[in-house]
Amino acid sequence: MRHKGSHRRADLEAVLAAGFLCHLGVTVDGTPMVVPTAYGTEGDRIYLHGSVASRSLVQAPDTTVCVTVTHVDGLVLARSVFEHGVNYRCAMIYGVPRLVTDPEEKLRGLRALTEQCAPGQWDYARQPSRKELAATALIALDLTEASVKIAGGPPDDGDSPDAELGLWAGVLPVVTTFGAPLADPVLPPGIEPPAHVRDREGRVLGEAVRPPAADDTSM
Amino acid sequence: MRHKGSHRRADLEAVLAAGFLCHLGVTVDGTPMVVPTAYGTEGDRIYLHGSVASRSLVQAPDTTVCVTVTHVDGLVLARSVFEHGVNYRCAMIYGVPRLVTDPEEKLRGLRALTEQCAPGQWDYARQPSRKELAATALIALDLTEASVKIAGGPPDDGDSPDAELGLWAGVLPVVTTFGAPLADPVLPPGIEPPAHVRDREGRVLGEAVRPPAADDTSM
Repeated sequence: MRHKGSHRRADLEAVLAAGFLCHLGVTVDGTPMVVPTAYGTEGDRIYLHGSVASRSLVQAPDTTVCVTVTHVDGLVLARSVFEHGVNYRCAMIYGVPRLVTDPEEKLRGLRALTEQCAPGQWDYARQPSRKELAATALIALDLTEASVKIAGGPPDDGDSPDAELGLWAGVLPVVTTFGAPLADPVLPPGIEPPAHVRDREGRVLGEAVRPPAADDTSM
Repeated sequence: MRHKGSHRRADLEAVLAAGFLCHLGVTVDGTPMVVPTAYGTEGDRIYLHGSVASRSLVQAPDTTVCVTVTHVDGLVLARSVFEHGVNYRCAMIYGVPRLVTDPEEKLRGLRALTEQCAPGQWDYARQPSRKELAATALIALDLTEASVKIAGGPPDDGDSPDAELGLWAGVLPVVTTFGAPLADPVLPPGIEPPAHVRDREGRVLGEAVRPPAADDTSM
């Protein structure tokens, strides 16, 4: 099976753990608006950064949003155009978001978000002041209503009549990695990137997700 | 300026040309749904693959959708957590989509989509039969209502009091490349990947986008 769906919590956590950017869908005046934004998870919650979402939350409370996290793993190049596709892992979370106002939770949420993007930075960089915290829009969403979709493996037409065409078929992998840290041009000489930043160079983003088990819901 | 907005057509085309996967936001029963799907552009139109969208189109015609294409360029690691961020390029297109039913346009749209994902595959692989064409859901959207947002450059706090902290600050680049083609395990020996597939190994996805000009709308 090239496509699998899953409602397992472990699959959801694995997809979320492998990234830091989501696409948030909010309905503004009846129209869906899809914006990229950073996220972090903590326990049963996902925290999102975003003024767009917070504006729509204020304008239309109790409105469901959709948060989608997608990792592209490769292009599926089949013998026929019809069987072409994309290998990906995708998590979709639905829920009514909550604007985080409690300063303590806000700090915890921002920490989760910062550490998701750049592990080690929360303790390294200057943490938010009370004023900065107030100026940051953070929203929280429960992970209760979520699903994972995974498309993986080679093309599907290896045992079709098209196999007789003698064409090459397979997957062209898509790999996302961290590059070498680029220092701020105004940084004084002699300040080197800390180990938690330096060590990410060459590391693959979006990895370490196990495929869903055989008993998962098929898509 | 770290953030820029643009309504220039050239910027839109550059962001769209640099990718092949978008996030499509559709409203289904009042709830936004954000799904990743492949796209291709042709002239003033973007074509999208997708059964979800086509279902929602049939259920709720004349409903506006949002198509978002995002390239992540790096993590902005500032002196303060508050100034942390993501460097990215993002195009958002709004419009009422049209289900493509004319077989000729469908073929053109699928060609644009296939070539966007894998240039050269349309002529290499077996093209869709009439039956396959009928089984493919393709939607078209005008590029009329679109905007581009770009966040780039070093952190913003290089001239703030935080510069005195002596912390490293800069950007950790995020780079997406194509890997070595993986042959379908059932491919007979002796069939090598064609040049248009082989030559993509090591090539960077999402590149070749010039920054918006100085006269663009500021975000």
